[in-house]
Amino acid sequence: MYGVKIFLLVMVSLSVLGARESLSQQALKQRLEPIPSDEKTLFSYINDPSDPISEDKVELGKKLYFDPRISKSGLISCNTCHNLGMGGVDGVETSIGHKWTMNPNHLNAPTVYNSVFNKVQLWDGRVSHLEIQAQSPIQSEAEMAASTELVMERITSIPEYVAEFKKAYGKDVNITFEKIASAIGVFERTLVTPSPYDDFLNGNEDALSKTQKEGFELFLEKGCTKCHYGIALGGTVQPFQVAAKYKFIEIGNFKGNENGMVKTPTLRNVAETYPYFHNGQVWSLKQSIMDMGSIQLGIKISSKDADLMMDFMHALTGRKPVIIYPMLPRSTIKTPKPDMN
Amino acid sequence: MYGVKIFLLVMVSLSVLGARESLSQQALKQRLEPIPSDEKTLFSYINDPSDPISEDKVELGKKLYFDPRISKSGLISCNTCHNLGMGGVDGVETSIGHKWTMNPNHLNAPTVYNSVFNKVQLWDGRVSHLEIQAQSPIQSEAEMAASTELVMERITSIPEYVAEFKKAYGKDVNITFEKIASAIGVFERTLVTPSPYDDFLNGNEDALSKTQKEGFELFLEKGCTKCHYGIALGGTVQPFQVAAKYKFIEIGNFKGNENGMVKTPTLRNVAETYPYFHNGQVWSLKQSIMDMGSIQLGIKISSKDADLMMDFMHALTGRKPVIIYPMLPRSTIKTPKPDMN
Repeated sequence: MYGVKIFLLVMVSLSVLGARESLSQQALKQRLEPIPSDEKTLFSYINDPSDPISEDKVELGKKLYFDPRISKSGLISCNTCHNLGMGGVDGVETSIGHKWTMNPNHLNAPTVYNSVFNKVQLWDGRVSHLEIQAQSPIQSEAEMAASTELVMERITSIPEYVAEFKKAYGKDVNITFEKIASAIGVFERTLVTPSPYDDFLNGNEDALSKTQKEGFELFLEKGCTKCHYGIALGGTVQPFQVAAKYKFIEIGNFKGNENGMVKTPTLRNVAETYPYFHNGQVWSLKQSIMDMGSIQLGIKISSKDADLMMDFMHALTGRKPVIIYPMLPRSTIKTPKPDMN
Repeated sequence: MYGVKIFLLVMVSLSVLGARESLSQQALKQRLEPIPSDEKTLFSYINDPSDPISEDKVELGKKLYFDPRISKSGLISCNTCHNLGMGGVDGVETSIGHKWTMNPNHLNAPTVYNSVFNKVQLWDGRVSHLEIQAQSPIQSEAEMAASTELVMERITSIPEYVAEFKKAYGKDVNITFEKIASAIGVFERTLVTPSPYDDFLNGNEDALSKTQKEGFELFLEKGCTKCHYGIALGGTVQPFQVAAKYKFIEIGNFKGNENGMVKTPTLRNVAETYPYFHNGQVWSLKQSIMDMGSIQLGIKISSKDADLMMDFMHALTGRKPVIIYPMLPRSTIKTPKPDMN
């Protein structure tokens, strides 16, 4: 009899516990999604079947990503502003480009890590495809300032690059500017960083600390996932300044897209992607959390809650892929010279 | 009797051949020296017993070498001008530093690869120690433009760096500016690139092609080793414009050291370290060879000979160490902010 009572008690307790959804269940319901732990599934997420990822393309794209010769001066590479050793960003308010030019809209460089999971790219979300996005900074006067012709001439003047394009895309490849940007995009697709947060959602209950779980609960409760959802925890355009004005809105005077909407940045590696917001005006992650409460959600997030939420966000710092620094093929006498002007 | 005659003939031939020195023997006589193939010997060559190389120091030094936060702007690292993916140089006439400033003397960035074998550093040879050299560009207004205080504050504000200094130099380490530069220097000591040329001098007769051997002979015959000798094939100060004026001497108006002497650059990886000469005015390696004939040796080197010598110089392109791109520790809220001005 005694045994039966204990058995019933345990059953009742379990069903009560079961009635309350687990943190993971709540998260999934709020459209959060982990980076799949299974490599095959992950590959299907990051691959673009119309231009499939291959080892040769990635290796070529990596070289081009690190090659400053795709800029007019020969000094600025993709990695200059999206530094893979610094969370995929440059750690400055707004990027400095050709001739020490500041971005005219004072826009902050978003991280390249996990950008494959963004539904849209660039702060106004005007581009969705990574391979298209890569064309933009190369040509922008305030960034790499190179013409499409210059980039093509530089790359095609280097026999090793030509050989690598043939190896990656077939011997009849037409090495256009678009193809060059495309190889960079393929490399970028591989820059994913699974984190303790993903381990937790993938079933490892111990991947988050007690306070991180508390912070995660607050993150869900307060409604952060209205914008920060999906694998990227961001990466879609959303209304900005929903409840209050962003204190630094005038700096750079960025207007968002035609509807005034702004791309929600990914929260992955957010502890490393300071300074925050589209114009990089806030350096403190805690402050950013509190600001988002007031600006977007119309709530006051207490200092204690912000600390816990920040603790959770550290669990979004991911394991970076090992990157062997590429040895770039040398220029030839035909390669167009660097141009500082 | 017939057998004895053949025997004698063979002996005479061998002794005649023996009388003519081998290419390697001639090279060693002209003070050339290979990078030792034996790791222990190599270590004794690159190590400074007063601050011995260790894995922890090299790992820390590598991070600092790639860290743009040791510059005022937070954008320029050692690797910006001494790019390890580009033969250890930036591939531009003269380096561009803070605020897009050109080097006031229009000096070309020398390669960091094998700089440990230079007897002196910098174009006027005013510094001999790599660890001291590293202090100079960090502070130079036209390069990284950082004060010693700023660099120290940046690095000591980052707990992971402090921990790495303790690990590398002991728990009582005093993280001074000199110590930071010193760690960079230790990393640089490891940047050696053994080449087919070394393999040849170390006994592998097949390491050079037929034309490379011909080029090597010309290199020795014409007297290039008067300045380009030692392991570095350069790296000592020597008189410049011995026989004729350098056509571009006015550009940058560099005067050399107090005796008008200039550091002979290493020829290792010379095929990758274009453009050439102290002010980077010549892009063609072949032209540089011919120019050196007229300017330094007072001889006309024919186009055919220059081609062969250039072919030999390609055998100086070395095998680069594999460099895992370092993941840098993130800044903290105490870290002094980037300063673009």
